[in-house]
Amino acid sequence: VPTIQEAVERKLERITGAPTVVIGAGRTDAGVHATGQVINFRTEGTIPTERVCTALNSLPPYSIVARDAREVDPAFHARFDATSRSYRYVILRGEPSPFLRRYAWRVTDPLDVAAMREAAAQLIGRHDFAAFCAAGAEVQSTVREIYRLSIVERRRLLWIDVTADGFLHSMVRIIVGTLVEIASGTRSAEAMTAIRESRDRRAAGATAPPHGLYLTRVTYGAKRP
Amino acid sequence: VPTIQEAVERKLERITGAPTVVIGAGRTDAGVHATGQVINFRTEGTIPTERVCTALNSLPPYSIVARDAREVDPAFHARFDATSRSYRYVILRGEPSPFLRRYAWRVTDPLDVAAMREAAAQLIGRHDFAAFCAAGAEVQSTVREIYRLSIVERRRLLWIDVTADGFLHSMVRIIVGTLVEIASGTRSAEAMTAIRESRDRRAAGATAPPHGLYLTRVTYGAKRP
Repeated sequence: VPTIQEAVERKLERITGAPTVVIGAGRTDAGVHATGQVINFRTEGTIPTERVCTALNSLPPYSIVARDAREVDPAFHARFDATSRSYRYVILRGEPSPFLRRYAWRVTDPLDVAAMREAAAQLIGRHDFAAFCAAGAEVQSTVREIYRLSIVERRRLLWIDVTADGFLHSMVRIIVGTLVEIASGTRSAEAMTAIRESRDRRAAGATAPPHGLYLTRVTYGAKRP
Repeated sequence: VPTIQEAVERKLERITGAPTVVIGAGRTDAGVHATGQVINFRTEGTIPTERVCTALNSLPPYSIVARDAREVDPAFHARFDATSRSYRYVILRGEPSPFLRRYAWRVTDPLDVAAMREAAAQLIGRHDFAAFCAAGAEVQSTVREIYRLSIVERRRLLWIDVTADGFLHSMVRIIVGTLVEIASGTRSAEAMTAIRESRDRRAAGATAPPHGLYLTRVTYGAKRP
């Protein structure tokens, strides 16, 4: 199974007639979805920009859909120039749904959404998120700024929306795993600040599964979204 | 690939310890979904009724989910005793969605929903629906009563909800195919009555693809839902 990046590169090679390297704005691990991924590539192909989406969408795999294409400054870099990224994590409560099996994390324990929100508020702002970074990830700094962390109830679904200037490896999934432990009563909401301040991955909760996670938006330019 | 019926029968054989025959209320051709299918089976197995769903859902394939189980009169027959069935057909307008690729029929032509409703109204009631029956289907009578045929717009989705005392083979999909031809301007809304009265399959539109169709509800008892 090729990665999404490889699949898009193959489509672009067919469209442009030459090997094409794709740079994506945000990592999406296996099983993770994206509704707002941004990529950039350089090409000497002659396809008009306004036909790029239709051409990409006419080639398999059809599970990858291009929604918009624009010509940009040659210096544009989808990853380095991004000023914020947003992810949504989707939780399904209660009985299983065959339709959402690969699109939401099903949690059967009753969840205290108020406690979840109280804990989430303790993560907003500029902090060291080392406790919410996958062990073994090599990064220069584990400081990030979370601009927004909101929880929306929509019937049996919970949407956890997070926007930050950047994310550490598995950061959203570890935050969600910790929030669910708090919401199910395994830990108290007040513990969240201490977990964050520990800077110790072992203090946080389990990593939530990938299939509930969506990269929803990447912004450029203005420093705050 | 086993049918859904075969897959459920295999699950039941594991749970009850004996080969078990399943009777389903409504046909779901390959690609068609069901959110409200009803089945019945007889067993001498000793599993308590309240544990049947959990047991079924603990076995693969997980794309089949049991939502409720009840002990019924030994004479109950899921198909013959049904007094109405409801199907929903889902149309996705505009750009493709990787998430709905197998769950909605994508139509790119602009659709005149008012014309669609005007045409749909001409099908409500007790009529001979032979024009909307797959060629070659062998049935005693092609007369059915449509109790309800409503069209709901929900952002980019169109939901076509049909309730009838029974359905002919591919009836909903042929009705939807005809409605889409009317909504896209290929035919006029007024033509629907003549199409119905022709009792000729060739007069109706193309059969809409299976993956937009859902069996949503089966009712028993009261003659009208």
